[in-house]
Amino acid sequence: MQITSLQNPKIKKAVKLRKRKERDESCLFLIEGYRELSRANLKGVEIVELFTCPDLFLKTNEKKLIDKIGCENTYVCIKSVFEKISYRDRPDGLLAIAKQKRLDLSYLEKEIKKLKKPFFLVAESIEKPGNLGSILRSADGVKVDAVIVCDACTDIFNPNVVRASVGTLFTQPVIETTTEKLIAFLKKENIKIASATPHAEEIYTEIDLTSPLAIIVGSEQYGLSKKWMTLCDIKMKIPMKGIADSLNVSAATTLLLYEVLRQRNER
Amino acid sequence: MQITSLQNPKIKKAVKLRKRKERDESCLFLIEGYRELSRANLKGVEIVELFTCPDLFLKTNEKKLIDKIGCENTYVCIKSVFEKISYRDRPDGLLAIAKQKRLDLSYLEKEIKKLKKPFFLVAESIEKPGNLGSILRSADGVKVDAVIVCDACTDIFNPNVVRASVGTLFTQPVIETTTEKLIAFLKKENIKIASATPHAEEIYTEIDLTSPLAIIVGSEQYGLSKKWMTLCDIKMKIPMKGIADSLNVSAATTLLLYEVLRQRNER
Repeated sequence: MQITSLQNPKIKKAVKLRKRKERDESCLFLIEGYRELSRANLKGVEIVELFTCPDLFLKTNEKKLIDKIGCENTYVCIKSVFEKISYRDRPDGLLAIAKQKRLDLSYLEKEIKKLKKPFFLVAESIEKPGNLGSILRSADGVKVDAVIVCDACTDIFNPNVVRASVGTLFTQPVIETTTEKLIAFLKKENIKIASATPHAEEIYTEIDLTSPLAIIVGSEQYGLSKKWMTLCDIKMKIPMKGIADSLNVSAATTLLLYEVLRQRNER
Repeated sequence: MQITSLQNPKIKKAVKLRKRKERDESCLFLIEGYRELSRANLKGVEIVELFTCPDLFLKTNEKKLIDKIGCENTYVCIKSVFEKISYRDRPDGLLAIAKQKRLDLSYLEKEIKKLKKPFFLVAESIEKPGNLGSILRSADGVKVDAVIVCDACTDIFNPNVVRASVGTLFTQPVIETTTEKLIAFLKKENIKIASATPHAEEIYTEIDLTSPLAIIVGSEQYGLSKKWMTLCDIKMKIPMKGIADSLNVSAATTLLLYEVLRQRNER
């Protein structure tokens, strides 16, 4: 089916899904872009509607991906229509409505037995979708066993999380839970809690990060909450030689994650 | 003087400076926020107009800073007016119009003699102001001798660069030049050119980064240009153990910068 009108109700529905309220009520969300959709498809994310715009395709692989997804409700849009539903600077002619699938701590409670040396990233109250997405991308880079989002401010299905994560939101387990539950779980499983604070004495590259580990990072504005900070087994400092007292949260997270990789000598 | 009208020409002028064309023509730009303005003030950035909104102040330090800046053209705005000129989520009641001051390669040609072991960060064609700002923040964290922006896509005086850099745009030399001129300079000064590419064999933590060094990072979309890539003295790989083939550019830059710091054993 071809969509040529900006007033088409399917187009209006797609635009509405940029809003959290609409996503929460429908349990649907948006995935835009070739890489993002490929990764979602690879991991079995359920696509309910697929909008395409062949005029905007960059290569010739798009058709293969569309066939692979095999969505019954696939629509070809004219350019002006696609540009209305697109939320990126350079639309590549692929945008889907997909079903949300959420994991909670029970997933980890089952999986934990399979992990030899657990390595988790915990993101507490991250506010900016771009930061959360970029953190997910770095977590994929080191292949953590899970990303755990606790006391979330940002909806993990925000289109900017999907975009900044370049689809790595789908390729790793992303658990949503509360600080309280998570602390109990980590303590029970003897997983060390590590975080960066300017008040620590030891530098992150000089502290042993090779044990079962959860790296905890906090919000852009307030840093890590007291609840976590008082419970930390490992406090470490990132050197700040200039005038600023901290890095961007996703930059700091990346440093800590890759330091674990370096120390564990895994490639 | 108090400003109570959204139609006040000074307010309109401030809003206009969000646009590049207006900044280029006037050689002015916007600085919003306490930390950003403190850092600009510390480094002698010339403030031509200062807008304040005491209702939005967070602490009591604002008045001290306003006195320190001592700008003749300081205006008190009512909340609705200040919110019109503010471009952040949580305005803190301070926004200034400042004079742009740009540095070109001649600055480095003079300064280079003073540097024992030069350490530069080169950002080529970064597109997103948020990324450029975050890169500046990390560069400040390791205290590079200069950040060199070449073949710029993003205006370094874009308000989002100022914001994401948390004012570190002002606290370090930021040079603007072309790739061609910069390559000639680095070669002449025997500064090694290092960059990350997925095609490299050695991992960034296992390669010697202790010599006079310029780390080069490229655009979000296309990576580093061929011009730079063919000239690289040091090519290194960031391990990507997941499904994605690269990190966010500011995350990758931070990793490389801090690895230099670790190897040089500087704190």
